[in-house]
Amino acid sequence: MYNPQLTSDGKLKHLLSIEGLPKKVLLQILDKAESFVSVSDRDVKKVPLLHGKTVCNIFFENSTRTRTTFEIAAKRLSADVINLNVNTSSQSKGEAIIDTVNNLIAMQADMFVVRHSQSGAAHLIAKHVPDNISVINAGDGRHSHPTQGLLDVFTIRKYKPDMHNLRVALVGDILHSRVARSEIHALTTLGVPEIRVIAPKTLLPNEVEKLGVHVYHDMKEGLKDVDVVMMLRLQNERMSGAMLPSTQEFFKTYGLTPEKLALAKPDAIVMHPGPMNRGVEIDSRVADSDQAVILPQVTYGIAVRMAVMSMLAGGEA
Amino acid sequence: MYNPQLTSDGKLKHLLSIEGLPKKVLLQILDKAESFVSVSDRDVKKVPLLHGKTVCNIFFENSTRTRTTFEIAAKRLSADVINLNVNTSSQSKGEAIIDTVNNLIAMQADMFVVRHSQSGAAHLIAKHVPDNISVINAGDGRHSHPTQGLLDVFTIRKYKPDMHNLRVALVGDILHSRVARSEIHALTTLGVPEIRVIAPKTLLPNEVEKLGVHVYHDMKEGLKDVDVVMMLRLQNERMSGAMLPSTQEFFKTYGLTPEKLALAKPDAIVMHPGPMNRGVEIDSRVADSDQAVILPQVTYGIAVRMAVMSMLAGGEA
Amino acid sequence: MYNPQLTSDGKLKHLLSIEGLPKKVLLQILDKAESFVSVSDRDVKKVPLLHGKTVCNIFFENSTRTRTTFEIAAKRLSADVINLNVNTSSQSKGEAIIDTVNNLIAMQADMFVVRHSQSGAAHLIAKHVPDNISVINAGDGRHSHPTQGLLDVFTIRKYKPDMHNLRVALVGDILHSRVARSEIHALTTLGVPEIRVIAPKTLLPNEVEKLGVHVYHDMKEGLKDVDVVMMLRLQNERMSGAMLPSTQEFFKTYGLTPEKLALAKPDAIVMHPGPMNRGVEIDSRVADSDQAVILPQVTYGIAVRMAVMSMLAGGEA
Repeated sequence: MYNPQLTSDGKLKHLLSIEGLPKKVLLQILDKAESFVSVSDRDVKKVPLLHGKTVCNIFFENSTRTRTTFEIAAKRLSADVINLNVNTSSQSKGEAIIDTVNNLIAMQADMFVVRHSQSGAAHLIAKHVPDNISVINAGDGRHSHPTQGLLDVFTIRKYKPDMHNLRVALVGDILHSRVARSEIHALTTLGVPEIRVIAPKTLLPNEVEKLGVHVYHDMKEGLKDVDVVMMLRLQNERMSGAMLPSTQEFFKTYGLTPEKLALAKPDAIVMHPGPMNRGVEIDSRVADSDQAVILPQVTYGIAVRMAVMSMLAGGEA
Repeated sequence: MYNPQLTSDGKLKHLLSIEGLPKKVLLQILDKAESFVSVSDRDVKKVPLLHGKTVCNIFFENSTRTRTTFEIAAKRLSADVINLNVNTSSQSKGEAIIDTVNNLIAMQADMFVVRHSQSGAAHLIAKHVPDNISVINAGDGRHSHPTQGLLDVFTIRKYKPDMHNLRVALVGDILHSRVARSEIHALTTLGVPEIRVIAPKTLLPNEVEKLGVHVYHDMKEGLKDVDVVMMLRLQNERMSGAMLPSTQEFFKTYGLTPEKLALAKPDAIVMHPGPMNRGVEIDSRVADSDQAVILPQVTYGIAVRMAVMSMLAGGEA
Repeated sequence: MYNPQLTSDGKLKHLLSIEGLPKKVLLQILDKAESFVSVSDRDVKKVPLLHGKTVCNIFFENSTRTRTTFEIAAKRLSADVINLNVNTSSQSKGEAIIDTVNNLIAMQADMFVVRHSQSGAAHLIAKHVPDNISVINAGDGRHSHPTQGLLDVFTIRKYKPDMHNLRVALVGDILHSRVARSEIHALTTLGVPEIRVIAPKTLLPNEVEKLGVHVYHDMKEGLKDVDVVMMLRLQNERMSGAMLPSTQEFFKTYGLTPEKLALAKPDAIVMHPGPMNRGVEIDSRVADSDQAVILPQVTYGIAVRMAVMSMLAGGEA
């Protein structure tokens, strides 16, 4: 079967979604990322792997935070980085996505990091570019955000290396999360035997059980004896209509407090993709506790992005 | 006669407009650009010619697209690039253009790439800067946009090397185009014997014939047997009042369709400075056809900008 | 006494305000800056002192001008620079300052250049960061803007090396100036015997005399026989209410004209932190005269920022 993310001999060509990544490639990325964790720790945080390459951050949707992680990763690989916020410029002149991309191809960019509010935008671009250009999906609508999924499983593996014996719970706005689906797929691929989703019915996609997860509506039941609690961000900006009574009400029922966390295993870790809504989906006492690995997630996110970029640029896995 | 663009011994000092560039210098730029076409093709797309130099993109008028081409060109020459969108910052504090420029001079910048909505802004700045600083006009009002003109003649020369036997037609909004005048001047200088402009009367400057061009109001006549069709962008944002009936009407009369293009020579090339208004001045079937060299124009634009920057920085021609 | 700006063995750790900098460290910065003046004069304006380091310009308040000086200084030291305008992104998603900073710490940035409209923001961040990260205050509310203060005393020392025999006058909006307080402190520390402030009562802070300055309300008296005239910018945007009759009225009384300047010593220098309001606090005939050292201030500002950054990064003083 044709897989746009892989070359004919099975190497990573684009990173569009975790769905479709063979377990072997997924593990290659995680192992490669291990080697980059130390680079950012060094005094000179640079390796010359992408020297003389041009990486374009094409952000059709603004996200300083995500753009910064890719910019730092690319610069630590010695690439030249061009940032483009497209909404404010050529788009307003009526230029279509593909014309924008065609221009950047003609400027001989080597890699596109794409963020767009529409699902499938990165796939569309990947299908369009010539062989020598790679595309990384940095978030498309509510569809996918694969580097976030990768850094999450990297973090889990760091803290809980025996993934075949884990119970993982995803909590909150599963419906609007670009991360949840990637996450579930990656965890399943890596052999995690029990994945739970905990959310009100209004924040769950239809037929979520088909992904192989256990559904809970009650946090006290769902968190029982889990090893990993992955909180999701309440995507206020992506919600239309009155799916929720109020954020206070949400916090009462689905916000992670120390009391609720006490039901998980004593050494359970707490994750969050950021930025956190403190007091909405997570209590500050949890966010700032020793069980939280939210900031290590950010650190590992740089290493994972460096790994993906270097593999796409032809670095040995 | 004093020419602000040249040093006393005839070398390029600023690039402000194609008018005033001797044929010899124009050819030097084109020849130098040839040598840079291959740099962007290489695996390591960098040469150290501007290492340790500071290039400031001073954009008084926003243009992500143009800014990106200069940023990529400067970075491939190893310069440090500083991007300044001036409208949103010090200008609103009442600082005049010259005070902004004085500050950047004091910061010991080496090169200014200037875009401004007022004609003559780049000339004003060039007159003001000290000897060691070069100014490149990246578009001033409807006056000039010389690197666009240069990349256009570079592209024509690539596809139609025998310029002494060419028939070139410029089509559309000649009046508001910053490019048309530069173009006509460059083509004349390089010996193109027949230049046509095709446009409604309302989109032609007064006394356009004095530039040595043949005026047509009917595309079918004007396109007949031409070698090069240069479409111009319909500058909606620069038009005030009702010069045009409607964009559909415009497309019907002056939009380039395969049918109209069939009147040109069979191997005619189609150019457009971008971004295209598909369905306004150009039909997608033409824009995406084999006759279109619109994307090569972008590619050559990087090489031309690298050539200009390296010559201004004192690189051998 | 604990001083957050110094390490336990007295080296510069953060630059938050000039208050609290021992004279020895202040002189180290000025001497170090001397060595960087020549770097920006060279053909290759780069030294590798911060190669492989990541400098984040975190601007909670927009200032292209200040951001540019830090960006140029960091790039001339070979650092990788990441620019973040925080107001438009994660802040609007409800992320607090500390969460933003925590994320950048997790990305293993090495240095934060912080600008914020609230006094104390840089101190707050400095208190929060781990040992290996340095914070530079690039302006916090009306509190402090230490690199501006440092470049000012550097400039004075350049033109008037015998600081023990100087009469310096600060003129204008002392109340809203982030610079005035730093200035007065630095000048006192460096042994300047007579510092005057000249302003209407409404633009003076309470008990300004306690800083050891002489207060004048009349420019003609205050400028008499001074060696240095430091004009302050009229901070329109920071003034609430009707403290001033009008800018014309202000110019008449406190604007620096050639006539008023004639009362100072014949070789007096005129300084201004920029951007100037010509015709409000300063007459163009003064701003553009030989006595003005306003542009050299900008030049020295790059050298001073390079000095501070290299000392913070562990360069020898």
